[in-house]
Amino acid sequence: MVKFFVGLDVGATNVRVNFFETQGNKLGTTIVFPFKQCRTATEEVESNICKPIEHIVQENQLDIKGMQGIGMSVAANFDRKTGDVVKWPNNGLWNGFKLSSYLENKYRIPIIMEDDANCAALGEFIMGSAAGLRNFVYITVSTGIGCGLILNGDLYTGNNGWAGEIGHVVMRKDGPICKCGVRGCLQSMASGPAILRRTKELAKNAGISIDECYKLEQVFEYPEEVAPYLEQSCREAAEYLSELISKLIMILDISDVILGGGVTRAGSVFMEPLNRILKDYAHCSGRKVTLKLAQLGDNSGTIGAVNLIYKHLNNGDDIKTIY
Amino acid sequence: MVKFFVGLDVGATNVRVNFFETQGNKLGTTIVFPFKQCRTATEEVESNICKPIEHIVQENQLDIKGMQGIGMSVAANFDRKTGDVVKWPNNGLWNGFKLSSYLENKYRIPIIMEDDANCAALGEFIMGSAAGLRNFVYITVSTGIGCGLILNGDLYTGNNGWAGEIGHVVMRKDGPICKCGVRGCLQSMASGPAILRRTKELAKNAGISIDECYKLEQVFEYPEEVAPYLEQSCREAAEYLSELISKLIMILDISDVILGGGVTRAGSVFMEPLNRILKDYAHCSGRKVTLKLAQLGDNSGTIGAVNLIYKHLNNGDDIKTIY
Repeated sequence: MVKFFVGLDVGATNVRVNFFETQGNKLGTTIVFPFKQCRTATEEVESNICKPIEHIVQENQLDIKGMQGIGMSVAANFDRKTGDVVKWPNNGLWNGFKLSSYLENKYRIPIIMEDDANCAALGEFIMGSAAGLRNFVYITVSTGIGCGLILNGDLYTGNNGWAGEIGHVVMRKDGPICKCGVRGCLQSMASGPAILRRTKELAKNAGISIDECYKLEQVFEYPEEVAPYLEQSCREAAEYLSELISKLIMILDISDVILGGGVTRAGSVFMEPLNRILKDYAHCSGRKVTLKLAQLGDNSGTIGAVNLIYKHLNNGDDIKTIY
Repeated sequence: MVKFFVGLDVGATNVRVNFFETQGNKLGTTIVFPFKQCRTATEEVESNICKPIEHIVQENQLDIKGMQGIGMSVAANFDRKTGDVVKWPNNGLWNGFKLSSYLENKYRIPIIMEDDANCAALGEFIMGSAAGLRNFVYITVSTGIGCGLILNGDLYTGNNGWAGEIGHVVMRKDGPICKCGVRGCLQSMASGPAILRRTKELAKNAGISIDECYKLEQVFEYPEEVAPYLEQSCREAAEYLSELISKLIMILDISDVILGGGVTRAGSVFMEPLNRILKDYAHCSGRKVTLKLAQLGDNSGTIGAVNLIYKHLNNGDDIKTIY
């Protein structure tokens, strides 16, 4: 019987699953399932976690009894002691659901949960852009701004698992109100929605309406006349982000920053000013900085998650495998 | 023959030495020697490091052959691979001196060097205000502003040993010029000399000259008429420091801050606004923070230093002793 463990990335839109056999080699590719909404959390867990796992088990002619453990990347806040979901901002149905116990009881195997940005950081560390680095910061700029810290070659999560919450570092006390209720958080000034809002504002001031764009991605595709406003809003966002990253570099003596998330797909309009401004900041403080794009894309979370369970079952060793 | 190791704190004004026997118990109290200036670095090392050690060896009827290793807290920048002093801002004579090799060759024992703020953090962790904490930040506000980070129960030093250099995080781009040449570093706005400069400026604007004060400590003793200006400058410094600490808390998910350094001796004029403003920041971001004064005072550095060598010789274990 083949022994294996499972990496899961549970998001509000998609669930990603991959399988690794116990030597650390990957079994097949990461498979993506669209998240299926149901009436109860239990039904959603059955439908979006258990069924996909059992489907892959069957497809690969594995035996479910060979499953040694599950590592899970979750976008929700959870209790690190119990594995209960505290709050999933994108799906209130799961609030309070005893996710970890449910799966533990069902499969009688260890379950490990971790924050999505932390899992992505781990994934990039194991076999992505950050392979071989001892200290680095992974930042995802998307609907929110998340961050994972690898320090001394290990994931650093802090007292409550909240380390790296850079999205809610206050950058300007008089900045826009953030979803969290505080003014001027980085997220309210440099995330995808923040860049979109600012682009719309700048365009509107110039008499151009792009109100029909409800996602930043739509602006990327937009005609030339909007380009200068997108450029300016990306430059402003890059300035705030660079300011924060430069502080991270100074505080943590890190020189590598791995960048992921949908906003990086804007390409040079965002990446060029970010690179330039960040290098300026680093130069001023006499520090070096290397900005790299995440390599594993949307798969970093499942790979990080599977590493957590591998580590748990292998005396704290990370997966050392050829991907 | 009693086996023991030595903790040293080499500062520009004083050298502090303590001895621990190999079980981790302290042999006598920490002894302070004033730093004696000589013509060469070698003479200064002999006079300020070797002689004090040999003096204590004799006083305690120990045998120098029982010395197993030296841990050293240094205020200088040094090369972590070679143990050479790169630059000691307060004593140029030592720049380039192969300090670690010199002592290794002389005593044929391992020598471990560490930054002074890092050693102080370690000292407070081993047997001071931070005993039992897994994650905390130690901040010293003095002539400069230094910081040591204990993360996951271990000293975190970063890629080059520069982690925690919060004194040179830029707080205001239009702030005063710092000694490092950059504008608006925290150190230029919240250190002892910065508070002194600002108090003088405020007093001067009100027609009072306190130019004869060349150290902040002198202002603490000053007559009532200066009190409002000292209060204001301390409040301003506390605001900058709180702003930075609140970012540290958010980034590292830490809730304990240990404060040391001469400026804390100003007492409530500095500590009261710092506590209040910091709690306000933490409250806004929904985080908890506990601000404690360092407990070991000027001895934290030697105790941290001795722990480094203890750890080196004891498979990575920290000293567990009753002080």
